[in-house]
Amino acid sequence: MKFQNQERKEWRKFCGYTICHLIFSHPIYLHYNQDSSKKKKNTSKMSNDETPIRFGIIGCAEIARKISRAINLSPNSTLYALASRSIEKAHNFAIKNNLFSDSLKIYGNYSEILDDPFVDAVYMPLPTTFHLHWAILAAEKKKHLLLEKPTALNVEELDKILDACDKNGVQFMDASMWYHHPRTGKMKEMIVDSKLFGQVKAIHSSSSYAPGQEFLENNIRVKPDLDALGALGDAGWYCIGAILWAMNQTLPTTVTALPNVARNSAGVILTCSASLYWEKEETVATFYCSFIAHETMDLRVYGSNGTCYLYDFILPFGEDSASFNFTSGAKFVDLHIGWNLKPQVVEVTSQLPQEGYMIQEFASLVKAIKFSRSKPESKWPHTSRITQLVLDAVNKSIDTGFQPVHM
Amino acid sequence: MKFQNQERKEWRKFCGYTICHLIFSHPIYLHYNQDSSKKKKNTSKMSNDETPIRFGIIGCAEIARKISRAINLSPNSTLYALASRSIEKAHNFAIKNNLFSDSLKIYGNYSEILDDPFVDAVYMPLPTTFHLHWAILAAEKKKHLLLEKPTALNVEELDKILDACDKNGVQFMDASMWYHHPRTGKMKEMIVDSKLFGQVKAIHSSSSYAPGQEFLENNIRVKPDLDALGALGDAGWYCIGAILWAMNQTLPTTVTALPNVARNSAGVILTCSASLYWEKEETVATFYCSFIAHETMDLRVYGSNGTCYLYDFILPFGEDSASFNFTSGAKFVDLHIGWNLKPQVVEVTSQLPQEGYMIQEFASLVKAIKFSRSKPESKWPHTSRITQLVLDAVNKSIDTGFQPVHM
Repeated sequence: MKFQNQERKEWRKFCGYTICHLIFSHPIYLHYNQDSSKKKKNTSKMSNDETPIRFGIIGCAEIARKISRAINLSPNSTLYALASRSIEKAHNFAIKNNLFSDSLKIYGNYSEILDDPFVDAVYMPLPTTFHLHWAILAAEKKKHLLLEKPTALNVEELDKILDACDKNGVQFMDASMWYHHPRTGKMKEMIVDSKLFGQVKAIHSSSSYAPGQEFLENNIRVKPDLDALGALGDAGWYCIGAILWAMNQTLPTTVTALPNVARNSAGVILTCSASLYWEKEETVATFYCSFIAHETMDLRVYGSNGTCYLYDFILPFGEDSASFNFTSGAKFVDLHIGWNLKPQVVEVTSQLPQEGYMIQEFASLVKAIKFSRSKPESKWPHTSRITQLVLDAVNKSIDTGFQPVHM
Repeated sequence: MKFQNQERKEWRKFCGYTICHLIFSHPIYLHYNQDSSKKKKNTSKMSNDETPIRFGIIGCAEIARKISRAINLSPNSTLYALASRSIEKAHNFAIKNNLFSDSLKIYGNYSEILDDPFVDAVYMPLPTTFHLHWAILAAEKKKHLLLEKPTALNVEELDKILDACDKNGVQFMDASMWYHHPRTGKMKEMIVDSKLFGQVKAIHSSSSYAPGQEFLENNIRVKPDLDALGALGDAGWYCIGAILWAMNQTLPTTVTALPNVARNSAGVILTCSASLYWEKEETVATFYCSFIAHETMDLRVYGSNGTCYLYDFILPFGEDSASFNFTSGAKFVDLHIGWNLKPQVVEVTSQLPQEGYMIQEFASLVKAIKFSRSKPESKWPHTSRITQLVLDAVNKSIDTGFQPVHM
């Protein structure tokens, strides 16, 4: 827990108060819906560079625990408000996760947090079904939007969300954290080096975990009215994203689902696979995503001159540093009794957890819009959109008996 | 080069002479086609357990260098004869690879070596086109057969070879070395442990190397009249074999090629991919094989409780020991900010190079047939046959526009 000390420090620095649980051993109830003038006043004294972006969290999902911590770790953001469907739930979430402060606002519904003029940006970990309504409303209320993945039930819905963001000049980003880890940047740097890596020829990715039988029937992620995309939307989103990342966000020529589709009794996907093909580049990619296989997070990129791979691309094994393996110029020695070299382990240290880097990046874009009249960064909506497009194609291929879907 | 000292020792032990290059700095010409009575006499004094199996090598391919070394390293075999299309070629091969001895027989054609009654077994690294003729002839001459992969141009040809082996009571084995490495056995032991690994849910494999433009047009491996199966037969053979190995040699329900097929100007496959699907087990496998991608030899087996993977499954990075990674019971820690464990590196040391283990296993089966009237081991022809069946299915799927082929 490298970030514990930093957590405290950053918390003090950006929120201007002391965390109660450091002083008291018993839970302290926080004041919610309180006047934000103190915070506002403090903020107004700061230069634009020092002013943290005020986040509101809409929906107290498990993942919001991690993101609220990241918001407070990130040097340019602060957790300002929290909303759940009931005030008690939001309240308990704040207590349980030591988020209480004299300035944190707690809302018992999603509308009010969007009406709060001091909320700059919202993080929205709601079930996918609710994204369309609440994401559009957030954009219309001029809240910059960090939306959990999968971004929408299909690209038509996502386009409506992106349209709303565009019209209202707010930043859109989906909450895929791994893009923001410095390791990802280092991998990219090495993969695009044509001498070191050459052209991308093939990619394989997996994202799986096995949460057990109860999950497979009852969890939000497998409920057709909440997260109808199941394992494809949850775990497959990362695989598709990683493949597109390796292909510089260019759409494949065709997408074809593989026949290993498993569904629960409600018809929600628990496992699936697909292949993607780029005709011009003659590049192929495959992925496997599942709720019924052991924890994996593989990404393997095969180049003409090199290979890059790691097993924890979505969530690094630990927070302090993360690594990947890279091989370039490998040959078999004389007599073919071994290799001339072993994969090189490239270690990248972190100053923040990857979700902290994500928040920092997002807040930085929001700041540029807010204070420097910059336009929203189009890279992030584009990244989400082509991921969603491929995801839709996988679904379509499954529905048409594993026929290739031309993009 | 751990095996250098051992090489000398074993050589002395089994061949009963001193290697000339250890004494003389200049090449010494060997006597070929000489009388084998000395060897025979020596052999006849030995008990059955001590009698080495006498190997003949048919075809002085590059790979024969490695196998001749392995034959002499293996404790139950000896290199007895060598044949090429010309006696000079065989001669030069023996000199270049320090194989000369007072007992090594050199033949200038393939027929004569098969007529030599003292040859127990032959290793045949001929181009695939020639397997049908020479492998059948070898079997008819009662020579046990270690045949290079791909075993045949198609399963119909292979069946004729296997039939001939069966009728003549000789052992058949294809020369896929990696099955025989103790690492492979250790992996299997861990994968079949249902508590540790669970059920196999998905598999991914790759085999690629990038030997350059000259190879892609002119090498034997891409000549339609010599090795018409190209990268599928050469590199893909291993991927298919590894996938079937993980699935306990059961045939998939369907095989579907993926669209990334590249061919050279003669129409020989340089790159391809496929997916395999086991309906009952709901298991999927994918592989990528290529002559135009960087060196890879990946095998990744995803179980319901564990994961097993390695990057050098065909040819270990080094000879002294080899490793694989194994993870079982991995979970994400609270807040999903890391994993509870990292993959375990399982290291397996070797007494022989893997091709030495292969020769040892093969010679041991031959000995059992020769001295104990055992029947040939059916596991190895079965392994080759289903590999060839899947390879044929990949080819058929490619030829039919990537349609699934039902097995």
